[in-house]
Amino acid sequence: MKSIRSLLLLCSLVLLSNFSLDEPAKPLMGFSESNTRSQLTLEADFDKLLQAQNLDNWMKYMSARPHHVGSVYSKKVVDFIAKKFKDWGYEVKIEKFDVLFPTPKVRLLEMTQPTSYKASLSEPPVEGDASSRQIEEALPAYNCFSIDGDVTAELVYVNYGVPADYEELEKRGIDVKGKIVIARYMGSWRGIKPKVAAEKGAVGCIIFSDPKDDGYFQGDVYPEGPFKNEYGVQRGAVMDLPLLPGDPLTPGYGATDEAKRLNIDEAPSLTKIPVLPISYHDALPLLKAIQGAVAPETWRGALPLTYHIGPGPAKVHLKIEFNWEMKPAYDVIATLKGSTFPDEWVIRGNHHDAWVHGAADPISGLVTLMEEARAVGELAKKGIYPKRTLVYCAWDAEEPGLMGSTEWVETHADEIREKAVAYINTDGTDSGFLGAGGSHSLEKFFDEITQVVQDPEKEVSVFKRRNALELIHDKPAWEYYNLDALGSGSDYSPFFQHLGIASLNFGFGGESSGGEYHTMYDSYEMYKRFKDPEFQYGVALVKVAGRTTLRLANADILPFEFQHFNKIINRYADEVTKLADDLRKSTSTKNKLIKDGIYDLAANPKETNLIPELQEEVPYFNFAPMENALTALGKQASAFENASKKGAINTNNLPELNGLLKDIEHTLTREQGLPGRPWFKHYIYAPGFYTGYGVKTLPGIREAIEQHNFTEVNNQIEIVGEIILGYSAKIEKAVELMR
Amino acid sequence: MKSIRSLLLLCSLVLLSNFSLDEPAKPLMGFSESNTRSQLTLEADFDKLLQAQNLDNWMKYMSARPHHVGSVYSKKVVDFIAKKFKDWGYEVKIEKFDVLFPTPKVRLLEMTQPTSYKASLSEPPVEGDASSRQIEEALPAYNCFSIDGDVTAELVYVNYGVPADYEELEKRGIDVKGKIVIARYMGSWRGIKPKVAAEKGAVGCIIFSDPKDDGYFQGDVYPEGPFKNEYGVQRGAVMDLPLLPGDPLTPGYGATDEAKRLNIDEAPSLTKIPVLPISYHDALPLLKAIQGAVAPETWRGALPLTYHIGPGPAKVHLKIEFNWEMKPAYDVIATLKGSTFPDEWVIRGNHHDAWVHGAADPISGLVTLMEEARAVGELAKKGIYPKRTLVYCAWDAEEPGLMGSTEWVETHADEIREKAVAYINTDGTDSGFLGAGGSHSLEKFFDEITQVVQDPEKEVSVFKRRNALELIHDKPAWEYYNLDALGSGSDYSPFFQHLGIASLNFGFGGESSGGEYHTMYDSYEMYKRFKDPEFQYGVALVKVAGRTTLRLANADILPFEFQHFNKIINRYADEVTKLADDLRKSTSTKNKLIKDGIYDLAANPKETNLIPELQEEVPYFNFAPMENALTALGKQASAFENASKKGAINTNNLPELNGLLKDIEHTLTREQGLPGRPWFKHYIYAPGFYTGYGVKTLPGIREAIEQHNFTEVNNQIEIVGEIILGYSAKIEKAVELMR
Repeated sequence: MKSIRSLLLLCSLVLLSNFSLDEPAKPLMGFSESNTRSQLTLEADFDKLLQAQNLDNWMKYMSARPHHVGSVYSKKVVDFIAKKFKDWGYEVKIEKFDVLFPTPKVRLLEMTQPTSYKASLSEPPVEGDASSRQIEEALPAYNCFSIDGDVTAELVYVNYGVPADYEELEKRGIDVKGKIVIARYMGSWRGIKPKVAAEKGAVGCIIFSDPKDDGYFQGDVYPEGPFKNEYGVQRGAVMDLPLLPGDPLTPGYGATDEAKRLNIDEAPSLTKIPVLPISYHDALPLLKAIQGAVAPETWRGALPLTYHIGPGPAKVHLKIEFNWEMKPAYDVIATLKGSTFPDEWVIRGNHHDAWVHGAADPISGLVTLMEEARAVGELAKKGIYPKRTLVYCAWDAEEPGLMGSTEWVETHADEIREKAVAYINTDGTDSGFLGAGGSHSLEKFFDEITQVVQDPEKEVSVFKRRNALELIHDKPAWEYYNLDALGSGSDYSPFFQHLGIASLNFGFGGESSGGEYHTMYDSYEMYKRFKDPEFQYGVALVKVAGRTTLRLANADILPFEFQHFNKIINRYADEVTKLADDLRKSTSTKNKLIKDGIYDLAANPKETNLIPELQEEVPYFNFAPMENALTALGKQASAFENASKKGAINTNNLPELNGLLKDIEHTLTREQGLPGRPWFKHYIYAPGFYTGYGVKTLPGIREAIEQHNFTEVNNQIEIVGEIILGYSAKIEKAVELMR
Repeated sequence: MKSIRSLLLLCSLVLLSNFSLDEPAKPLMGFSESNTRSQLTLEADFDKLLQAQNLDNWMKYMSARPHHVGSVYSKKVVDFIAKKFKDWGYEVKIEKFDVLFPTPKVRLLEMTQPTSYKASLSEPPVEGDASSRQIEEALPAYNCFSIDGDVTAELVYVNYGVPADYEELEKRGIDVKGKIVIARYMGSWRGIKPKVAAEKGAVGCIIFSDPKDDGYFQGDVYPEGPFKNEYGVQRGAVMDLPLLPGDPLTPGYGATDEAKRLNIDEAPSLTKIPVLPISYHDALPLLKAIQGAVAPETWRGALPLTYHIGPGPAKVHLKIEFNWEMKPAYDVIATLKGSTFPDEWVIRGNHHDAWVHGAADPISGLVTLMEEARAVGELAKKGIYPKRTLVYCAWDAEEPGLMGSTEWVETHADEIREKAVAYINTDGTDSGFLGAGGSHSLEKFFDEITQVVQDPEKEVSVFKRRNALELIHDKPAWEYYNLDALGSGSDYSPFFQHLGIASLNFGFGGESSGGEYHTMYDSYEMYKRFKDPEFQYGVALVKVAGRTTLRLANADILPFEFQHFNKIINRYADEVTKLADDLRKSTSTKNKLIKDGIYDLAANPKETNLIPELQEEVPYFNFAPMENALTALGKQASAFENASKKGAINTNNLPELNGLLKDIEHTLTREQGLPGRPWFKHYIYAPGFYTGYGVKTLPGIREAIEQHNFTEVNNQIEIVGEIILGYSAKIEKAVELMR
């Protein structure tokens, strides 16, 4: 308490220009009236310290050379970050994990029939981008955690390669067994494509960027414009991320020196077939050579050809081999001890490893984390310490599979579970509109921040600007900032879905789309021309993230709230109920059409259209356990709100109350995890088993319905009911503590 | 009555296999029980006479050489048709009209900046299609009734060139004044594109076929597949058809020898700016050279480039000159006098002129009309005459602007108005599903026919097959065959929308789409490979059309009915009411967003996005006169249904009743015509003033709302109310006559 009082005294003298001391400030969520004032002063001070030029300088340095896991320059980046944190007064640890990181040894793709073509598989330098000339240090384009393979087979075009696409193939009587599939990027996380292809019996998988989704159809291509040119190739991990992220050889535990490791061929998250990403330059001759049925309209991209499905006559030889090496992954962990609650941690992270230069991904986000930490450090040097401990993390090996964060979390799971209040993640960011996802018990808290940080281009809050986007698209106005549900794709996953730590993830975007993602062209030059040239949105992100960190660190009562969560989880419950009803109706309708011979009547005899098979009718499920639990939750959420409004909170109970609130997100997890993937323990939010990054809320119920595991649905509803009841009981306890 | 009795006698002996005489047939609409039996016998006999080989032979002959208006081979086609009809026992007249028919003298399109390109403007012969080698006799690709022009200006890409596209341009601050627009085909009838472009101040208009809509994106291109290859160009009229079809120099009256003609420069339906259609081969370099704002996503086609809007830097020189010549248009009018009601005419038409060979358009339809007429003639030779007079018409000069039919209708308007019972139109047809539009007072009648004609590929009625298409697209089942509302685009317009004759228009389609429409490649070779090779759907169409003709010709009571009409017009009324409400809401919402500065907040400062201007708020309209009239209509439609069900109709009144029913569609017209286009007199159905072929139902009200002529709306509602009341009064009178 002492440090805050002195801060208040100090700031009230310095910061009179920002707000008048005469007007009582509206209390911030979790703060008493007096601590609100000190916090606002602190934030005003924090803002004044921010310098866009730092972001620019650090990005220029850290993206100057390729810096993937285990590379020469990656270590330089790590040392650079560590040194900065030390300079700013942090206690810095570089934690090393030894992780499996395959890099390409052989990459060969050639068409052998009906004509010959050898894929170039290269991204040539472009004018005006010196970074793009650094080919020697760069990893060539590949999909990490593809297995080795040497296969020759006919091609089948499978659109995005998601389960729904294989249903279309089946309608046409086309089987991928023994074939090599060629899928386009987008429509799912890339790792889903080889996963489903292998399930269907394919022997290889090629992934290309279609110019419709990611190329000239979208806009002018690099270097004239920001979009993907014909040679750009999206690299990326293809491990089975929704099954298990992190080092494939140490599933569920840290990849430390002493850890016992699986053999490579035992690793469950590696692909089952070889996978290679290619450019649209290389895809064009292959797709041109595929014949057979014309692809459905939604499958057709923007290449100048008729998209056919095959199989063949195009036949390709795909040979890929990797150096299956262990590489050191270095996490930089910088700690600033809290003045009052040193054993309560606010963890803030962004990864530092890149596929090549990674100016946008991840450096644009990392530099905002560093500037935040620098300003916090400056304030600390003036004696203004956070009440809770801040842990700033620069993760390594995110790109190949969230390895740096996952191994750290798995290694220190108990301590993190005990101490972490929340995890705040950023990753690549650019300019435009604030996008954010996270735990809905933090939605109201986060909303408050979005209402005060100004958009750098317009004279309004980032909330108002984001809301304008809804309004011009004929959507209802946002009452408050709406958090998305989190799926996966960045380092929050181990904290959020594995440990059940309340998490947030955010960044700016929407004004500067492009095609640089995971290519040779994600360079400083590119970022400066097309993304956030003056780093004005970078600085805005520091303001958002800085407030998030500092308010969580300094709040008297941790700023969790349950009305927002109650509202959204009721929506998810309605969704899964409707999903079951809709599927029941559509299955019944479709079965009737099949029995009545309607598909045959409508079919064009000139085309192959197999009559769909009868599907299992969808039973009615017992949603009552979930609904009853939601009634309880609604009651407790209201009680908590009423107790909060009263203001006169029993301060004796504060430590216990905060301890309870800190742990409450964990109540939403289950030690056994989700069906078939025990690593994912959160029962409200998970990456979809067949979408990858894309979230599935209430995943146990939703995926059981979607995957037609109807016998599992009632069981999953019961589990969700129990979990919500457990959560409600915690809230009830919190309400008691507040009396 | 005599002839029918003898027919019954004759057929009952011959056709026992088709239905049992023991079972009383369910009466056909408009037929007594006994006449139902004779009619069914007649139809069974009719069907037996049909020979697919005739359709094949006649198509082969008539599409052997180019046969546009005024061409050498067109006259041969006319003589061929006339001779056939004479052979079949018809009284044949060739009626000649002298119409303006400009043909190209100079066609030049060259890009002068930033690079040079001269458009080839040619459709080369393709392998396997001998017809495509007949370049000398063919008209090159052009848009008929474009004015002459010699303009040089920067290009602006305007998407489909419809009013909504110009709203997008305005948002971006792009003006086409003094520019040449390049628009893609589709999205509206082609004539709308230069019309709107001229209204907006453009000096020239280029129309191209984008491979997205009409080319390799759709499927394999000719000659490998049926879709448009890179050189194919869609020809076609660009006169202001929704203002005034027919010969531009004789607006509203027949283009006979003695008719007074306008000067060409007085003709209201010619374009205001020069127009030229081009292939996507020729469009590619032009579009590549356009810079400026990237086109909105829905504007982007399938050419391998980033679609920009411009203006420029692409600058083109467009020079076109025409031979402004008068040409003879020959309609073949073949009459078979009715045995009982010779002064009641059932008119059946299809055009014979083509842009080039026209195997699909129009010959595929014409040969079905001829086979129908042949079979009817064969029956007549056996003494089985229709009760009413049949008038078979093969129209000339449909392609440049429905000229043959329009001039014939305008010349004989009084006689046609007096005698016509209905007009039945066909045009190009292929294979798959029956599509039909027309007067909804004939919907129930037409439905009955669709329930008995069998689909040639499946063992069900054409109705059931068409209905299957609805069902597999998750739409509700059809209770009965649903007629579309008719817009324009074929020869029914003068009968239907100018004279108010009840009309039907139909054909098969959906299984054999392609890109031959109005190109050099609409050949017999193409039709035989890709359309309806065995003419099995051609024969099915003869069965549908033959029944339509013969039932209208032989019905005791003309088979009009009003419950279907009542139902659909109530739907249209709901639509226009909702249109006003939706526009009121959206205008008010949009104005609020403008006033609140929301568009500015959402805008990307890197792009030009002008804030939209405030729009006039939409007042509430008085829909009561229409609603009250609909109540009256509903009552009379029910009364008519009840009277029909009773069966015991006063036969003394039959002549008067049929006279009333024959004229009732005319009650839906108004002598003054629609606002601003007096030629179009039908108040329920019209081609849209800004859609061309696309229909607008209740056009007076709907277009007044759409075009924001709010002061006109109440007036139009009153007119519609009066028209519906007049129609109801006629039904009431019919009900009285039936007692």
